Amino acid sequence: MNGAESLVRTLLASDVKTCFANPGTSEMHFVAALDRIPGMRCILGLTESVVTGAADGFGRMMRDPAVTLLHCGPGLANGLSNLHNARRALAPVVNIVGDQATCHQKMDPPLASDAIGWARGVSAWTRSAATAATVGRDAAAAIQAARSGNGQIATLLAPADTCGDEGGVPAERLAASPPPAVPAHRIREIANVFRSDEHVFLLLGGPLLDERLLGNAKAIASATGAKVMAQAFNGRVERGRGRAPIARMPYSVDQAIAVLAGTCNLVLAGAAIPAAPFAYPGKPGALQPDDAAIHVLARPDQDIGQALAALAEELSVTTSSAAEMSRPEAVTAGGISAEAVTQTLAALMPEHSIIIDESVSFGRPFFNGLSSGPWHDWLQITGGAIGNGFPMATGAAVACPGRRVIALQADGAGVFTVQSLWTQAREKLAVTTVVLSNRKYQILLSELANVGANPGRTALDMLDIGRPDIDWIGLARAFGVEGAKAENMAQFTDLLQTANERSGPFLIELMTA
Amino acid sequence: MNGAESLVRTLLASDVKTCFANPGTSEMHFVAALDRIPGMRCILGLTESVVTGAADGFGRMMRDPAVTLLHCGPGLANGLSNLHNARRALAPVVNIVGDQATCHQKMDPPLASDAIGWARGVSAWTRSAATAATVGRDAAAAIQAARSGNGQIATLLAPADTCGDEGGVPAERLAASPPPAVPAHRIREIANVFRSDEHVFLLLGGPLLDERLLGNAKAIASATGAKVMAQAFNGRVERGRGRAPIARMPYSVDQAIAVLAGTCNLVLAGAAIPAAPFAYPGKPGALQPDDAAIHVLARPDQDIGQALAALAEELSVTTSSAAEMSRPEAVTAGGISAEAVTQTLAALMPEHSIIIDESVSFGRPFFNGLSSGPWHDWLQITGGAIGNGFPMATGAAVACPGRRVIALQADGAGVFTVQSLWTQAREKLAVTTVVLSNRKYQILLSELANVGANPGRTALDMLDIGRPDIDWIGLARAFGVEGAKAENMAQFTDLLQTANERSGPFLIELMTA
Repeated sequence: MNGAESLVRTLLASDVKTCFANPGTSEMHFVAALDRIPGMRCILGLTESVVTGAADGFGRMMRDPAVTLLHCGPGLANGLSNLHNARRALAPVVNIVGDQATCHQKMDPPLASDAIGWARGVSAWTRSAATAATVGRDAAAAIQAARSGNGQIATLLAPADTCGDEGGVPAERLAASPPPAVPAHRIREIANVFRSDEHVFLLLGGPLLDERLLGNAKAIASATGAKVMAQAFNGRVERGRGRAPIARMPYSVDQAIAVLAGTCNLVLAGAAIPAAPFAYPGKPGALQPDDAAIHVLARPDQDIGQALAALAEELSVTTSSAAEMSRPEAVTAGGISAEAVTQTLAALMPEHSIIIDESVSFGRPFFNGLSSGPWHDWLQITGGAIGNGFPMATGAAVACPGRRVIALQADGAGVFTVQSLWTQAREKLAVTTVVLSNRKYQILLSELANVGANPGRTALDMLDIGRPDIDWIGLARAFGVEGAKAENMAQFTDLLQTANERSGPFLIELMTA
Repeated sequence: MNGAESLVRTLLASDVKTCFANPGTSEMHFVAALDRIPGMRCILGLTESVVTGAADGFGRMMRDPAVTLLHCGPGLANGLSNLHNARRALAPVVNIVGDQATCHQKMDPPLASDAIGWARGVSAWTRSAATAATVGRDAAAAIQAARSGNGQIATLLAPADTCGDEGGVPAERLAASPPPAVPAHRIREIANVFRSDEHVFLLLGGPLLDERLLGNAKAIASATGAKVMAQAFNGRVERGRGRAPIARMPYSVDQAIAVLAGTCNLVLAGAAIPAAPFAYPGKPGALQPDDAAIHVLARPDQDIGQALAALAEELSVTTSSAAEMSRPEAVTAGGISAEAVTQTLAALMPEHSIIIDESVSFGRPFFNGLSSGPWHDWLQITGGAIGNGFPMATGAAVACPGRRVIALQADGAGVFTVQSLWTQAREKLAVTTVVLSNRKYQILLSELANVGANPGRTALDMLDIGRPDIDWIGLARAFGVEGAKAENMAQFTDLLQTANERSGPFLIELMTA
């Protein structure tokens, strides 16, 4: 058995059975091993940013890693930005990166690069395999690392000889360390904060704001008079009718400061100290009042759900079902607005949809508005590295057959990774993409104003992606995906119904202002 | 004057007047400064791999840097693979990468990442600016570094406050160190190698194999009985009728070993020791005979042209014009073959064309075959990080208005950076792209055979980019570029003539087996 076979057998023995791949020469032993050993679902991406973004979406939905197969340092490099997003989402991902054979690295062949250095910036665990005999146990350790805590990125470089040489030894599954529980004394200390003050703000974060966690958080707030909110960027939130709706910290610094005003005690449950996404002239970086005390109920790497359950118990609060919101009717007339689109989405999105949010500037009402929709999961870009939406939708659809994925995709961000559509077509994935086509980097026009500039011709040209307009329907068709354009609400509502009835992918280009 | 204005003024004062950009929030001060200070040509790319690949093409043609504008670590990360190619080509590039304000980095906002770590793997010079007062001189130093030696990559991180704060001081142009000359004693030593042995192999490399360098190299070989060849991957070669034609080291290990067989003395002029692109089982990594002596006439960072001129003088050889090869006729009938395509290209390519070669497996006869074409420059992928062709063509066309760029682009590699077409359309660039559409990763099927594997269903699926076929004409049109498909030589010849007559971009999908 060669090293590659031991690697594949180790992955399967550890229940890692989905591989997103863009292989190259140094990965051919691995590809050959996949032929000989059944059990791995292999999904090809046309660029590595598709591959890693899909692994992010898969990891968020499964709370368990897929493996990526990437070609040497440059292949990893192409995937780094979506691994950055995955890291911020606490998504578990295992990367296998091919590399020059150990004996050949001294020759500095064309593809030789600083793959280890590039991996470290996104990976909690990084290793380069040394021999065929040990690459199996390296892979088991990588998977263990990816599953540890609340989910991490683990990157294993596999030089060609560690895959091609004989003497591979498959390794058994290694137990991962669950996120550590928050100790009881900490729960009691935090309970006292809630008991002693009415101006408590409970800020939620972590890999998954699930129904139980949100129920406990809302119950604690309701019983104590505290405010509660999720951080601005969350890997995954369970939402929809009958579930406790949660608001998110606004992206706008001024709005976030207003939301936090009057807070005396800020309690963090898996969240970081709320910070402006960027520093703006004359505005603070930290958003809570200067004199607010900060208390950490749970760090992002701890068991956040357990901490909130224990806190609810300590405070003797009980959860109750959230009030059922009535589902709105779809909007069938009039021009396109974010509010009308929200309403139609809430009306028509199928039960158990997975919403992918890279709507950037247009979609500000989407999150709160869709809480009146049926049960769904909400996945959003977490690290600000745009081009996350298309691939994440692809990976979420692979993870969850039978559920419809609806990707709310800003055009400027979407074009980074539009190659994802090809994978959606090939794998016949149940993804509806709504491209929010305003033909500009709208958010940057606002940001330019934030730094006090009036855009002139040069700036406008750099923030405008019209001239020529991108033909999204043409792009979709070229990659094998059916699509159509909506220029008013009647068309959008009609097309969303059409998309719902498809078993495979469908793209709607929504013409926004 | 704020830091960004001093940065732009420094770039202009140092004669860096072309900016390939994909800006984000942290670069808004820079964008605003571009509005206020005329003189910079700004070209938007829809992804950073387009931006950096275009800077590579520009740098190779101008032998002088453009500046890129990239958004934080993830933006840089997206551009790393084409910077890797640029580094291997010795192309001068200056990267300006926005970053969190220095005061804000401790908040670890979403886009915070290991940008410096990522930059180091491709950059000869890396710095993070500290203040608005010093960012100008940092930029001058970056440009100086990019221009030093035979061309380098310099990356300057510009935290938002170093651009937004007042107190910017523009810096004057700093003199760059030219590549050091090879000392006379070394020339004499190498001359003695040529005098004392008939089995000398002269291997050429470096940033630019220009007419004079190649003329001297060929004359030395002709006078001494030595063999001469260029390394397998070259940043730029001047070629065409009346210029000394040069062969390249074959990509195939077996062929390269055969070419080098019998070599007693291997003389390197800007080239590295010839190495297999990857290690293959049972084959050597270094390609020259084990007992060959290796002599370095010039390192890649030295003045290679001067060294060859001095060597020619030392050996008292004189260059003569190469024999004029007759230009072939275009092929107007029959099925598509690499040889027929080569012949039509040689027949029809305009004078002073710039050929971009990312033809991977299909285009093996292109290089030698086009030496009978008119004068042209040949730029090829140098670092093996695929997705280089489309952007490099874009940047070369920006650098050289009035010359036709012909990109010979493999489909699997091309789809990585197909977004480049939009920039070509926007800037009305004179680029003809010939997509070699075989709908598979053909080179990997060969590489799979090289590791001794017979591909099964899983492997074939991972190496096949059909199912669905990519509609290249549709892709081109969606990005604003005219295109048409060629299924036989009559159509290809006809379409190449059509493309020649266009002032802007044109794409031909060439259906290959």
